[in-house]
Amino acid sequence: MPILEILDYAGVAVFAATGALSASRKQLDIIGYIFLASITGIGGGTLRDVILGATPVFWVVNPIYLVVCGCAGLLVFFSAHLMESRYRYLLWLDAIGLASYSVMGAAKGLAATGSPIVALVTGMLTATFGGILRDMLAGEPSVLLRPEIYVTAALAGAGVFTAATYFAAPLLVASTLGVVTAFAVRGGALKYGWTLPTGDPRPGRHPNDVM
Amino acid sequence: MPILEILDYAGVAVFAATGALSASRKQLDIIGYIFLASITGIGGGTLRDVILGATPVFWVVNPIYLVVCGCAGLLVFFSAHLMESRYRYLLWLDAIGLASYSVMGAAKGLAATGSPIVALVTGMLTATFGGILRDMLAGEPSVLLRPEIYVTAALAGAGVFTAATYFAAPLLVASTLGVVTAFAVRGGALKYGWTLPTGDPRPGRHPNDVM
Amino acid sequence: MPILEILDYAGVAVFAATGALSASRKQLDIIGYIFLASITGIGGGTLRDVILGATPVFWVVNPIYLVVCGCAGLLVFFSAHLMESRYRYLLWLDAIGLASYSVMGAAKGLAATGSPIVALVTGMLTATFGGILRDMLAGEPSVLLRPEIYVTAALAGAGVFTAATYFAAPLLVASTLGVVTAFAVRGGALKYGWTLPTGDPRPGRHPNDVM
Repeated sequence: MPILEILDYAGVAVFAATGALSASRKQLDIIGYIFLASITGIGGGTLRDVILGATPVFWVVNPIYLVVCGCAGLLVFFSAHLMESRYRYLLWLDAIGLASYSVMGAAKGLAATGSPIVALVTGMLTATFGGILRDMLAGEPSVLLRPEIYVTAALAGAGVFTAATYFAAPLLVASTLGVVTAFAVRGGALKYGWTLPTGDPRPGRHPNDVM
Repeated sequence: MPILEILDYAGVAVFAATGALSASRKQLDIIGYIFLASITGIGGGTLRDVILGATPVFWVVNPIYLVVCGCAGLLVFFSAHLMESRYRYLLWLDAIGLASYSVMGAAKGLAATGSPIVALVTGMLTATFGGILRDMLAGEPSVLLRPEIYVTAALAGAGVFTAATYFAAPLLVASTLGVVTAFAVRGGALKYGWTLPTGDPRPGRHPNDVM
Repeated sequence: MPILEILDYAGVAVFAATGALSASRKQLDIIGYIFLASITGIGGGTLRDVILGATPVFWVVNPIYLVVCGCAGLLVFFSAHLMESRYRYLLWLDAIGLASYSVMGAAKGLAATGSPIVALVTGMLTATFGGILRDMLAGEPSVLLRPEIYVTAALAGAGVFTAATYFAAPLLVASTLGVVTAFAVRGGALKYGWTLPTGDPRPGRHPNDVM
């Protein structure tokens, strides 16, 4: 199985699992698990395909992705009670998904357009969109707004993959470098609380106090 | 008028009315009613068409859907003060929309791909997406996260329609069975508080307490 | 440079700046600024292109828009501390973006379909979607739900542009009229607190109190 296909299934499966973990945190029923698993698992890739005009989107062409999401949802449904902290699992699985999709998104964007900057953006968008969607639908505080590095990791993975491809690295090498970079950056942020400096240290006031 | 067209207009009209009811609950102005009515009315079908690559989407091809949304918005604007509970109307109209769109989404997905599993997912997604979008835009607690059965009803409607079609039932029969099933399941949930068991009974802790 | 292209770049740049201002209010890091700037800057136009089936979307075809977003994000990152009220800047830049995109969205919708009602809706949707997305992602109270006129300004701009075009006004005249109208309406709302009457003056009760 080619490397990009493995990354794609891996990204879908782990993102789906994070969606199901959110469903568990919100005490949804089994269909709620499968629903959130599916939306989180296929959300990022769906956005990528729609933006690039690659429709019908990937899971309509190949519904096996939906089976993967359903199985991930069921697996979490029957095992979540065994986990000490579902949110910690969610974050680490999300990191794997982010790493896979930063490369997948960049690879599809690069293949479709040849433009490195488009590849960076499709990598960044598709790696983060699944998690954004999950947090929105489940009403969780967005992982995007936490201080630890998140989007930066996706950008790093997409950037390393794109640069390596530009310098004619084989697909397997470029993909591995991208995934490892993104996961190392995000994993470090989770484990050691890595942050980048913020621009303006004043928190925003409530709109009603400003107008 | 063929059955699928009736379901489509019905789905758009009642979802639009629920969007306008949300606008009323949030005390928006008349354009706010029409805006939320339009987005809720056409949101689910727009997602369905984009996913399937059926663009330009249905309401661009046939703007009469927009007129339907606008009229639903105006109707609610001038009558909402007569209702004792706008939220109860919203829920029951949403149930009708959910039932119509679960069949419409499945029918379009099945016609475009021939795959029953894709039909299930497009049915489930397009039936629930209008309401998800409405609750997000209006800042209402998402109907998705309430304990009563919701997504399950959409899945049941899409499933019954797809199965009936698979066993060569005529379109009218399959559609009616699907709509009645979805509405019965969701209506029962609204009236009797039907729920499915949850997987893990622990509510999620706040992320800050976990990390 | 033709008028529509100027409006497009202007819309992208000022929406991107509002996204970066939201990032600043939420104390994100530099990549967070660029991320929110990009999503807010290209969000409305992306929705417009996807709805109309004009894919790959505009910024994939012409990545210079992404450079514009990145520069806007950097500019705000290094200057936000100089501003007394970032939210007030955000609102006024958003008003410029809303005005530009109400005409851009209507022009693209009209060119693609010839239907004035579709032009109204694509104008209204694409002018407001960037701001909706920004507020959702940044967890800000939605500008959509504030009492001052917002969607109405976008509709006015799209309407004036479409009507002027219908009466054979040259593109430059129709565009200028549309932009000025939308900006005047939204600017007046910001400065003088203009509102339209609401339909039903009762605020919505919490769902739990109704069911």
